[in-house]
Amino acid sequence: MARPSPKHAGNPALASIGKAVRAIRKDQRISQEELAHAADLDRSYVGGIERGEHNLTVLSLLRIAKELGISASELLHKAGL
Amino acid sequence: MARPSPKHAGNPALASIGKAVRAIRKDQRISQEELAHAADLDRSYVGGIERGEHNLTVLSLLRIAKELGISASELLHKAGL
Repeated sequence: MARPSPKHAGNPALASIGKAVRAIRKDQRISQEELAHAADLDRSYVGGIERGEHNLTVLSLLRIAKELGISASELLHKAGL
Repeated sequence: MARPSPKHAGNPALASIGKAVRAIRKDQRISQEELAHAADLDRSYVGGIERGEHNLTVLSLLRIAKELGISASELLHKAGL
């Protein structure tokens, strides 16, 4: 399990990823709890990701993208990265 | 600085990212040392990334992609992710 890294709060790239994750998750009517469970992450950690507070790993990004039904490259593309 | 995570050695997604990084880096005639320095990573860590041994963070991925002259989404796309 990745640990919280609040030192990254405010990073524009992480904020963009968080906004994209939240937007796609809401489009698909998935709750944070459901996404967290499916991606094997803590619910609070998913909340932090959506707020752009965590410098998540590639494997976490891949798990999140999979549960959102898109590729990781598509997720980053939607985040403008 | 991210720490080595050899427990991820053999992960297919990380191996794909590593292969893509190495291929693009060689295409652009950039050395591992140059890439590491420009992306603010250890040279040995970049070597480990190219071998698929490290579950790198999104911010490290972004720095590497930037130095390779492509977007992070494009890098993941080239890795088939």
